[in-house]
Amino acid sequence: MPELRKDAVTGRWVVISTDRRKRPNDFRRERASVIGGEHCPFCAGREGMTPPEVLAYRRNNSPPNSRDWDLRVVPNKFPALQVEGNLDREAEGLFDRMNGIGAHEVIIETPDHAKTFTTMSEVEIERVLWAYRERILDLKRDIRLRYILVFKNHGAAAGATLEHPHSQLIALPIVPGHMRDEIEGARRHFADKERCVFCDIVRQEMAAGRRVIHENGEVVALAPFAPRFPFETWLLPKSHGARFEDAPRQQYESLARMLKSVLTRMDRALEHPDYNMIIHSLPFSEQVTDFYHWHVEIIPKLTRTAGFEWGTGFHINPTSPEEAAQVLRSFGG
Amino acid sequence: MPELRKDAVTGRWVVISTDRRKRPNDFRRERASVIGGEHCPFCAGREGMTPPEVLAYRRNNSPPNSRDWDLRVVPNKFPALQVEGNLDREAEGLFDRMNGIGAHEVIIETPDHAKTFTTMSEVEIERVLWAYRERILDLKRDIRLRYILVFKNHGAAAGATLEHPHSQLIALPIVPGHMRDEIEGARRHFADKERCVFCDIVRQEMAAGRRVIHENGEVVALAPFAPRFPFETWLLPKSHGARFEDAPRQQYESLARMLKSVLTRMDRALEHPDYNMIIHSLPFSEQVTDFYHWHVEIIPKLTRTAGFEWGTGFHINPTSPEEAAQVLRSFGG
Repeated sequence: MPELRKDAVTGRWVVISTDRRKRPNDFRRERASVIGGEHCPFCAGREGMTPPEVLAYRRNNSPPNSRDWDLRVVPNKFPALQVEGNLDREAEGLFDRMNGIGAHEVIIETPDHAKTFTTMSEVEIERVLWAYRERILDLKRDIRLRYILVFKNHGAAAGATLEHPHSQLIALPIVPGHMRDEIEGARRHFADKERCVFCDIVRQEMAAGRRVIHENGEVVALAPFAPRFPFETWLLPKSHGARFEDAPRQQYESLARMLKSVLTRMDRALEHPDYNMIIHSLPFSEQVTDFYHWHVEIIPKLTRTAGFEWGTGFHINPTSPEEAAQVLRSFGG
Repeated sequence: MPELRKDAVTGRWVVISTDRRKRPNDFRRERASVIGGEHCPFCAGREGMTPPEVLAYRRNNSPPNSRDWDLRVVPNKFPALQVEGNLDREAEGLFDRMNGIGAHEVIIETPDHAKTFTTMSEVEIERVLWAYRERILDLKRDIRLRYILVFKNHGAAAGATLEHPHSQLIALPIVPGHMRDEIEGARRHFADKERCVFCDIVRQEMAAGRRVIHENGEVVALAPFAPRFPFETWLLPKSHGARFEDAPRQQYESLARMLKSVLTRMDRALEHPDYNMIIHSLPFSEQVTDFYHWHVEIIPKLTRTAGFEWGTGFHINPTSPEEAAQVLRSFGG
């Protein structure tokens, strides 16, 4: 059973999930092996290689787990957390732990092994966003859970072990560290000014323009003022909304177009970088929604992470956001 | 001039240091090139390839920047921060920035290109610790500075670009993110219980034993209860002390022996892993010292960092600390 453990000093939770290691004594370096097309369990016709689907967009009324589909969501075969069991909590002296209850799912975005968000159509990307939404709405009914991480690791440098286009979702009984910091920061700003800090950022950045990469009907793409990484990019809905899953239909349509546009610009400017995409959204447990603003963060993997950044949370970024925004603006269609 | 910028939501500071990129338009992936012996600027006889030394332990009263030395400290040739200038602070609407004032130095630990902390003698390692101390005591007289990061990136996977054994020091006008979280957490624990949380951890772990890797006269090495990474290891002085630079002499002697012992165990158990070592110490600006406890963290680079951990601060660790401690205990001399 995976376990959630809390650091007694910082309050940071981690998952200890020993089942994910293939061999019990293999502590050595991970090999950078990525599963290619020949053995891909996510390709059409290999539905038996995954656990049974929990959601699928199917063609021609085809039966579950058969071949004819546009998108499938399946449980992760090596889950970091488990749905079964009780959320037992206990202390060990100073320390706190609980069972690693949660869900870990894979969104297989298309049957086509070779596609990416830049070669998919906007309609295909929007379908992926709707699948995120459906899974979130289903999972949040489980009262043990407090947060759902939706993310995409594209390419080996970003941590992907399968080439086939896919995203992941991890539902947790706790709120992860950075999200907690963000939520507390946004809450302080609102308490102080009675305004959402992200609404303030959108307004100021759209007026100034220097860090704006692109905007469309509902969404604006920004290089944030204090980026941790070169070409870090935030996609924010222009109008206030706390949760991704509660967004109006036209925001998904705008977000799909924006994802394709921004990732295409990065492909052109940065030679097809690997990247991580993460959705930030308000935890279910929060009743008040006026202080937080959902958004998407994209981090291309351009620099090796100098190790001390891991241990310190302190980032040295060699590219200014003004320059990054200017470059990405210039690589537009 | 490098710039410190604060994220308006989380309060996290980053350095934007565009001078460190060699060519202005090179946004592409970093090559994993490590400078080997032939072109090494840190080897004996190449003293002219570094900026002039700010500290050296020399043999035979040899003159500064000449060949005959045991250890040298020099400014980083591509510094992330600069000593010259004023700490100008300004707002840009919502946002805050200040000049990137600070110091960035390299501790060249030995003239011998091929040595490591596991092949150096304990006396040689202790000499490195004394050099850290001397530089900290000198730099903290600069009232613009609030924190000094002392760290070591060993190997390309840990972010090192030079093979030659060296550590780094970055002096900052702000307190970095993780340290701030740690300090606030330790302050809360003390306010609640009138005890240092690290003293509590040392006491509980030494009594339980399961996560103890090794102990000697003054220092204990632990696998922390909630490690972010496999084989993450903390080295703590057994008796309370808030700042590394104020530690008594015998703690440096014990720490040197412990570093050699722990890194030798990791070399045996994990096939000579790359690693990061970071010293955590109380910021200069803090007057009260009873709530914080300096220590050293070692993080071997065994897993590729799945990207979402960057964006979320949420870590999935496939190795339990009990297992890691047991393995490292069994690989003792």
